[in-house]
Amino acid sequence: MLCRTLRFRDNQGRETTLTSRRLVHMADQHLAAIEMTVTGENWSGRILVRSALDGHVVNAGVERYHQLNGRHLKALRSGSVDEDGLYLLVQTNQSHLQIAEAARTQVFCAGQRLNVRRHTVKEQGCIAQELEFDLTRGESITVEKVVALYTSRDHAIAECSIAARKAVQRASRVGELLQSHLLAWGRLWSEGDITLEDGRRTQLLLRLHLFHLLQTVSLHMIDLDVGVPSRGWHGEAYRGHILWDELFIFPTLNLLFPELTRALLLYRYRRLPEARWAARQSGYKGAMYPWQSGSNGREESQTVHLNPISGRWIPDHSQLQRHVNGAIAYNIWQYYQATADREFLSHYGAEMILEIARFWASLTTYNRERERYEIRGVMGPDEYHDRSPGADAPGLNNNAYTNIMAVWTLQCGLKVLDLLAPDRRQELCHALHLRDEELVRWREITCKMRIEFHDGGIISQFEGYEALKEFDWEGYGQRYGDIQRLDRILEAEDDTPNRYKVSKQADVLMLFYLFSSDELSALFNQLGYPFAYETIPNNVDYYLRRTSHGSTLSRIVHSWVLARSDRTRSWHLCTEALESDVSDIQGGTTPEGIHLGAMTGTVDLVQRCYTGIEMRDEVLWLNPRLPGDLRSLTLHMRYRSHGLTLDVTHETLRIAFRQGWAKTAKIGFRKQVYEFDAGDVKEFTL
Amino acid sequence: MLCRTLRFRDNQGRETTLTSRRLVHMADQHLAAIEMTVTGENWSGRILVRSALDGHVVNAGVERYHQLNGRHLKALRSGSVDEDGLYLLVQTNQSHLQIAEAARTQVFCAGQRLNVRRHTVKEQGCIAQELEFDLTRGESITVEKVVALYTSRDHAIAECSIAARKAVQRASRVGELLQSHLLAWGRLWSEGDITLEDGRRTQLLLRLHLFHLLQTVSLHMIDLDVGVPSRGWHGEAYRGHILWDELFIFPTLNLLFPELTRALLLYRYRRLPEARWAARQSGYKGAMYPWQSGSNGREESQTVHLNPISGRWIPDHSQLQRHVNGAIAYNIWQYYQATADREFLSHYGAEMILEIARFWASLTTYNRERERYEIRGVMGPDEYHDRSPGADAPGLNNNAYTNIMAVWTLQCGLKVLDLLAPDRRQELCHALHLRDEELVRWREITCKMRIEFHDGGIISQFEGYEALKEFDWEGYGQRYGDIQRLDRILEAEDDTPNRYKVSKQADVLMLFYLFSSDELSALFNQLGYPFAYETIPNNVDYYLRRTSHGSTLSRIVHSWVLARSDRTRSWHLCTEALESDVSDIQGGTTPEGIHLGAMTGTVDLVQRCYTGIEMRDEVLWLNPRLPGDLRSLTLHMRYRSHGLTLDVTHETLRIAFRQGWAKTAKIGFRKQVYEFDAGDVKEFTL
Repeated sequence: MLCRTLRFRDNQGRETTLTSRRLVHMADQHLAAIEMTVTGENWSGRILVRSALDGHVVNAGVERYHQLNGRHLKALRSGSVDEDGLYLLVQTNQSHLQIAEAARTQVFCAGQRLNVRRHTVKEQGCIAQELEFDLTRGESITVEKVVALYTSRDHAIAECSIAARKAVQRASRVGELLQSHLLAWGRLWSEGDITLEDGRRTQLLLRLHLFHLLQTVSLHMIDLDVGVPSRGWHGEAYRGHILWDELFIFPTLNLLFPELTRALLLYRYRRLPEARWAARQSGYKGAMYPWQSGSNGREESQTVHLNPISGRWIPDHSQLQRHVNGAIAYNIWQYYQATADREFLSHYGAEMILEIARFWASLTTYNRERERYEIRGVMGPDEYHDRSPGADAPGLNNNAYTNIMAVWTLQCGLKVLDLLAPDRRQELCHALHLRDEELVRWREITCKMRIEFHDGGIISQFEGYEALKEFDWEGYGQRYGDIQRLDRILEAEDDTPNRYKVSKQADVLMLFYLFSSDELSALFNQLGYPFAYETIPNNVDYYLRRTSHGSTLSRIVHSWVLARSDRTRSWHLCTEALESDVSDIQGGTTPEGIHLGAMTGTVDLVQRCYTGIEMRDEVLWLNPRLPGDLRSLTLHMRYRSHGLTLDVTHETLRIAFRQGWAKTAKIGFRKQVYEFDAGDVKEFTL
Repeated sequence: MLCRTLRFRDNQGRETTLTSRRLVHMADQHLAAIEMTVTGENWSGRILVRSALDGHVVNAGVERYHQLNGRHLKALRSGSVDEDGLYLLVQTNQSHLQIAEAARTQVFCAGQRLNVRRHTVKEQGCIAQELEFDLTRGESITVEKVVALYTSRDHAIAECSIAARKAVQRASRVGELLQSHLLAWGRLWSEGDITLEDGRRTQLLLRLHLFHLLQTVSLHMIDLDVGVPSRGWHGEAYRGHILWDELFIFPTLNLLFPELTRALLLYRYRRLPEARWAARQSGYKGAMYPWQSGSNGREESQTVHLNPISGRWIPDHSQLQRHVNGAIAYNIWQYYQATADREFLSHYGAEMILEIARFWASLTTYNRERERYEIRGVMGPDEYHDRSPGADAPGLNNNAYTNIMAVWTLQCGLKVLDLLAPDRRQELCHALHLRDEELVRWREITCKMRIEFHDGGIISQFEGYEALKEFDWEGYGQRYGDIQRLDRILEAEDDTPNRYKVSKQADVLMLFYLFSSDELSALFNQLGYPFAYETIPNNVDYYLRRTSHGSTLSRIVHSWVLARSDRTRSWHLCTEALESDVSDIQGGTTPEGIHLGAMTGTVDLVQRCYTGIEMRDEVLWLNPRLPGDLRSLTLHMRYRSHGLTLDVTHETLRIAFRQGWAKTAKIGFRKQVYEFDAGDVKEFTL
């Protein structure tokens, strides 16, 4: 609930107090309410309140989009509902989605409803009621507005404007709505809250981030067809597109509300036919999910973008970020690990993983000279590099992150086939025309994919990275101050980051973020490449020194990869990431929308990283190591239908099973696996 | 696939063979196709084919609805797609749902695509292409039309007419579509087929019924918001309304495709707020689901209906059939028994059961004189009785079926509360304001609900049944021949079935259909009423002699209740029920739509009744007794994530576990419980 109190004096000396409470209802997703109380502190007089439904809203929140059409609604109809209500029906321009709002405005004084003068003002696309009433000095009068919103895609309605009107007619008063709203939030907090002690405002910010997460991907979207927009629903950056941010969001959701992850993965499943079509159009097999997409799952990445510094429109090749497919496969597997939901894996997950694996295999080519498989012409997560210096065509060869994700997906595809019941496996292979020859090739790729190295054990971000120039970090830092968006700075100088060893965000380091050292070691061994204990710290050190943090996500990744080797620095990066939106640390991007991936990433750092959670071979492994400043941590989670509470300090780890439907769960600590039953509590010394 | 071959000679002596194949695609729910091959047997000449999308379709399938408005579509837009395609966009009148169709028509000769002359004909609400080509004597030319259909409620689209156009542009040719269609059906048959030997056409009809079941509630509706219409999607009787037929459908689905039941129960869950509102408006607590409903879950039962014999409009009180609420609760519990899906029970099922239980409790009044609880003013499933003879107000008191369903629901509500995890129980009781005092009353009702008896152990259908007159079955049978719809006959004679001991369909007998003898015995004992071994056969005998089979569902129920005592008669009723639609045994109701409940009921008789399946206390109990004519039976089913095959003869029962995710399942036979693991096979002698 957003509460606000305002006291002001006008130029006639009248002092007024205005308090307001507003909410978007967490139990009834169709309702929102605002309650405003006005007190005439030293005056009496007439008040006019205008309560409107305005279909003239435009998208104007992002400065550099101003030249784009910001008007997306066409008004269809409006009118009155009973004596105190209004409704407005609009339609989106392109998708012809209808949206209906109905509002009920009532006025109260000392708990009694006032009979006020009302006058309806109707213009094209906007309808309002003007309410007039008298206010006596010292008296408080409250105006309540309850709004219902339905769209033509909502379930269990006949028509959305009828549904909206009925809903406001039936809605309770704001006070009662607030009670059920609080109850619904109480339920969320009891399942998801994290409490900690670090003597700072970390607790507050973590809750802010959880709050944004749970109102963006709320439980109400389970029944809808909704993806995770990078910038939440608040802002207009990326125009509401779906990118790969779910990679930073789903692992956290899996342990809080796995039913949300399931619903969000189904969003991808429904777009599998479009991803198949995209692969086929580009000459590949399987399914190629787009880098940016909207409702129909088509590639929506821009092909040019504006550099606000130079004022130039630059060709944009970001759709070559095929690694989004690895993120989707990874998330499906993580969801399965956290939930053991075989039904999902069997009906939906397996098909997506297999089709993505197949795409990777068809994107991979064999280099006879090197006797290695290669992936050519793609972009990694680091958007500073979209081609080799001087190359004609965009795209990089053998981007380490992409190649490893491809190998991992292919392995996962083979594993998933083994997990399926024999009937279903046969049926799925038949439906997908997936033959044994293909699987043989998959297996070969997982042993022979090419990864480049340089400087003795540094994983090259891509082929040719070694030959790039070192960047003058100090000089540019002095010249420009904030160099988070080096790409824009260099382009304005007619230069390009493609020439330098610079990264906008973690790219090689993403590997250490997504996989444990054991998993990576196994992957590299299988590929026949050395992977020593020092590989991780050496690479972390190497790339951290060459990264500008041009993305809010990079702090999450860097904090994560430092969590074992440099806990102080890791915690520092985590607390920086906690400030991303609340302090708008990129200087102006928060009004364009929250950074949901970064917000959730901070929760994830506390939830999975410092507790050392890893799920493999049907076991939940724990290995907590709190940063120095973080004295204690309590969190709730769900693991395979169990409710679980962890209390962690620097000295102890306490695990309590609150409830469980599955019979037992296996929890691993220091190489030993313990069977937990409902009601069990165990404490370990760290 | 529907195949048809036609050979005809016109008045000029030209002989033509026309073969057609058509399908509604089971893998891609948006596609349908028709392929027509024309052969000029003894002539050559020019052919004109008109391929249209027609928005002028009206509902005109039910004679007695002709005075109602049958036009539901308004045409919005139409046009061409490429050279060989068309599209048409229409909108439903009241719900403003948009429906887009696109069609692609191509002509082939000997596998080669022909370039034909095309001419587009466009009128308001209809668009067509006329194709002209030459046919040579003895030659065959094939016209293929592939159609895509999308609505504005479909997922993963931007706008439905764009989606439909894209889909036909991308669609394969009919031959290829047929392959993937067959594959999808193959999957369904491999999971759901029933094979049996009885030397008659039972096998064929059972498969026809399974086919209709699986195309009406197809796997594609899992992602939509769909209920089970009584008459399938074919016919217009009941105007597509949702009644209680799911009681005859879900128990079968639970053991075949439980994910379908889950989706269909969610349809009810989404309408829980409307059911709550209905209860509140009628002065009750909890949720009161409607007898007939449409998309928004509101009561849609007619208040008058036409007697075609007398031509009179008769007041219709069928909305007093509150027992639909018992059916919903029963189905939720059955689903849980079959699947052990705690997540569904916890998130959705429990809330519905509790709210229905609460409705029953508030509908129940205490009679101080009798020291019993009563339910007054309702109708049972037997629609011949809507009031006591001479009573002013409609509704009956103490309808045995309703009272027992209420008691059962209240018991189930108490059981469900115990099953919930403590956190969820607390939260749900809090959200529903469900207090301990209410639960105390629930418990009391389950011990003191009134049931009437007469003639020593006959359960009275309702209070006052005993005093009704016996009906002259013989006389009316001689006079009218078919007396299935006695209600219409009597009304036309200014009489009413309310005066007689006659039933349109099982009402008391429903109890023996839904509950085992053990369950009923426990219920009656708890209520302090006698329940002897003879209660069931005596009641069956009593009511079967007083039933006109006015509903196709009654044969199912009667066959079921006779399955143990009179297997020959039971099997006879079952084979009669198998003919319901294929032979239109009610004389004209099949063109108004299939009787999906009766169709599925026949599958259920074979699946659950003759195998003696009962699920209780986490055990699947089997007790097969095949009717004499049924020599052997093989069926597949799912039980709590296990795949299971049963082979039954008169001598043996063989149980094979095909696959399983859950570790083990418990199967009971002759009072002993066996643990089954994946791969286990056991054979028992009967």
